[in-house]
Amino acid sequence: MATLAQELTFEQKLDQLGRVAIEVGLGLKAGQELVMTASLDAVPLARRITEHAYRVGASLVTTLYSDDEATLMRFHHAPDDAFDRAAGWLYDGMGAAFKSGAARLAITGGNPLLLSNEDPAKVSRANQAVSKAYRPALELITRHEINWTIVAGATPAWAAAMFPSDTADVALSKLWEAIFATTRINVDDPVSNWKAHDAELHKRAAYMNDKRYAALQYRGPGTDFRLGLSDDHLWLGGGTTAGNGLYCIPNMPTEEIFTTPHKDRAEGTVTATKPLSYQGTMIEGIHVRFERGRIVEAHASRGEEVLQKLIATDDGAGRLGEVALVPHSSPIASSGITFFNTLFDENAASHIALGQAYSSCLRNGDKLTKEELAARGANESLIHVDWMIGSDNLDIDGITASGIAEPRMRRGEWV
Amino acid sequence: MATLAQELTFEQKLDQLGRVAIEVGLGLKAGQELVMTASLDAVPLARRITEHAYRVGASLVTTLYSDDEATLMRFHHAPDDAFDRAAGWLYDGMGAAFKSGAARLAITGGNPLLLSNEDPAKVSRANQAVSKAYRPALELITRHEINWTIVAGATPAWAAAMFPSDTADVALSKLWEAIFATTRINVDDPVSNWKAHDAELHKRAAYMNDKRYAALQYRGPGTDFRLGLSDDHLWLGGGTTAGNGLYCIPNMPTEEIFTTPHKDRAEGTVTATKPLSYQGTMIEGIHVRFERGRIVEAHASRGEEVLQKLIATDDGAGRLGEVALVPHSSPIASSGITFFNTLFDENAASHIALGQAYSSCLRNGDKLTKEELAARGANESLIHVDWMIGSDNLDIDGITASGIAEPRMRRGEWV
Repeated sequence: MATLAQELTFEQKLDQLGRVAIEVGLGLKAGQELVMTASLDAVPLARRITEHAYRVGASLVTTLYSDDEATLMRFHHAPDDAFDRAAGWLYDGMGAAFKSGAARLAITGGNPLLLSNEDPAKVSRANQAVSKAYRPALELITRHEINWTIVAGATPAWAAAMFPSDTADVALSKLWEAIFATTRINVDDPVSNWKAHDAELHKRAAYMNDKRYAALQYRGPGTDFRLGLSDDHLWLGGGTTAGNGLYCIPNMPTEEIFTTPHKDRAEGTVTATKPLSYQGTMIEGIHVRFERGRIVEAHASRGEEVLQKLIATDDGAGRLGEVALVPHSSPIASSGITFFNTLFDENAASHIALGQAYSSCLRNGDKLTKEELAARGANESLIHVDWMIGSDNLDIDGITASGIAEPRMRRGEWV
Repeated sequence: MATLAQELTFEQKLDQLGRVAIEVGLGLKAGQELVMTASLDAVPLARRITEHAYRVGASLVTTLYSDDEATLMRFHHAPDDAFDRAAGWLYDGMGAAFKSGAARLAITGGNPLLLSNEDPAKVSRANQAVSKAYRPALELITRHEINWTIVAGATPAWAAAMFPSDTADVALSKLWEAIFATTRINVDDPVSNWKAHDAELHKRAAYMNDKRYAALQYRGPGTDFRLGLSDDHLWLGGGTTAGNGLYCIPNMPTEEIFTTPHKDRAEGTVTATKPLSYQGTMIEGIHVRFERGRIVEAHASRGEEVLQKLIATDDGAGRLGEVALVPHSSPIASSGITFFNTLFDENAASHIALGQAYSSCLRNGDKLTKEELAARGANESLIHVDWMIGSDNLDIDGITASGIAEPRMRRGEWV
């Protein structure tokens, strides 16, 4: 157990978060350039991260700030055909930075409800335009060719969505404390603590890799679902060595182990156990049915139109690209808080993701062509959207190649 | 005379500034993309500009924010070899945006003293790296291929440098009022008012073009200087139609008429009449001597090392690329305020600029090759730095092709 460092001030905690993001999450190398994205509300954290980046020897930190108010102005005033445009020049530039050796850090924390009152058709078109424009750069991330990480910074709008009955100050403070606790920086030596946690996740992934299950069978309220795993699948968890040779932990927090399912081998019904916040829209009560890997029926009690458009993005958007296992006793689940943010919520519960598969979750996946990846069952899509299906009512069996079911999780916990 | 609209609130003035920047300065076209740069301190003005951009039909506004604190962190912590690096990927991206039809707006207003305590060698290397990386994109600007403009937003650091004896609030408020007044937005119909001002500048430039002077002769305290004009030179002032067909006024405020001197035809001594704030360093008491177009001796009472390094940037950095005439009675000069910001100070006094020439200041200049431009005397350099030589003690004669001197300015005013 790590020592709790309860006497840390807010500024000290923010600084610890910045330090852990650079030294553990990103594993930034001296001389490396860093491209960071952040909301204007995240300036104080971005500055802590920037200082730690330069302290370990970054050559240049460039932060691309986004502004929720400017985004809303576009939805309120821009002409209709604007919504098929994206800043391709900027995404191409980011891709060029990655290719020339830059690392990538994203501070997440946007308003999960930002676009909930906007025209879903425009939201979908705008998202699709960004997905297309960002794809070449994003592929360098999904293929783990460079070191990258995502951390969270609290923002007033996010805090208000999470704690609607609190005052703005109290909500923001609660969210920061939740981020600090779940990102494991409230300890005297957060760097060592993170390294121990990372080793634990690697051990769990190695166990599943030894098993070489052909499929997973899920049973829970509204869920009766069999998911084939990709041929040559590889369970991963915690950090990874990127193609550029640098070790990074791409998500902070991270509690999951995950792999690539087979895009043609999902059968049955799945019910989401948490709301999905998708680029400013809240989708609740998701219930879908799969046949031969593809969603053939999709419902939601709220945001169904956005869900339908999301699934229709392209051929791979209705198929699965990731499957992840998280025990219900993980610190995030224990907090009892729903963050409306994938970085946290996906680490609170077992989940699956629609869309693009990570080639790194296949043996030698980074060396395979698109055709070879597809032949092994890895899905391809413009999107990658995680949604939660785990709970303390979910049982999961591993199905061996010979068809034997082995209990792996009961009531949401490892057996 | 325009009607003074003295009852405007601060928010209304900020909004008028945003409106004038988009509708008059930039001349943004419906469907056009906009790339904006701004300091984090300029968020409220950037938002006003963004809204007006979308109101006239912008497809997408992307604002690249810079952060003085992050810049300082780099100077304080980054390794030495970092200072030869720049975000080439970002500047290339901006160039790609311009080529695909985007307009360009810069909000100026940084701390003029930001880097005054940093190592001048590092400052110079960092500036040079940015100049090199930005050059391909900047050429689209200097050649007026796209519509672009620069406006100012007050920032606390800039205000403190200008009004050091005032409290922070008072200084910031004084600076905003000075910006509003000199940018001519304190009137009921700032758009019409700007159009009338623009017509006046065009009339003045046309008069000088009719004269076709071979050179200008300057006489004042510490100045005895003859500056040959470029063959086929063209005086410009106010707005211009860019290569993309859109009419823009590239500087707000603008009080100058300007043209391209001949890079090999400057002789004599020149003394600056205002301090030059160059990328965070203040250079005061500049006194230089030209021979055959090139600075052969350069002194400054403060910041001489930065001046020397600036002049040594490349072969064209010690030669002149612009000459501009501004009457001493211009609103900015009348305000009696030194802004430590080129956008204002260059419109308070006649000035010259070291470095890159504007090809648009030559007849058919935008169609000429680099070699043809050079043959006409247009200078080429990575830099373009304006410095003020005008005052109420400066006399300027136009020298005709046959060598006759005609008085053009006496004691800083048009005769």
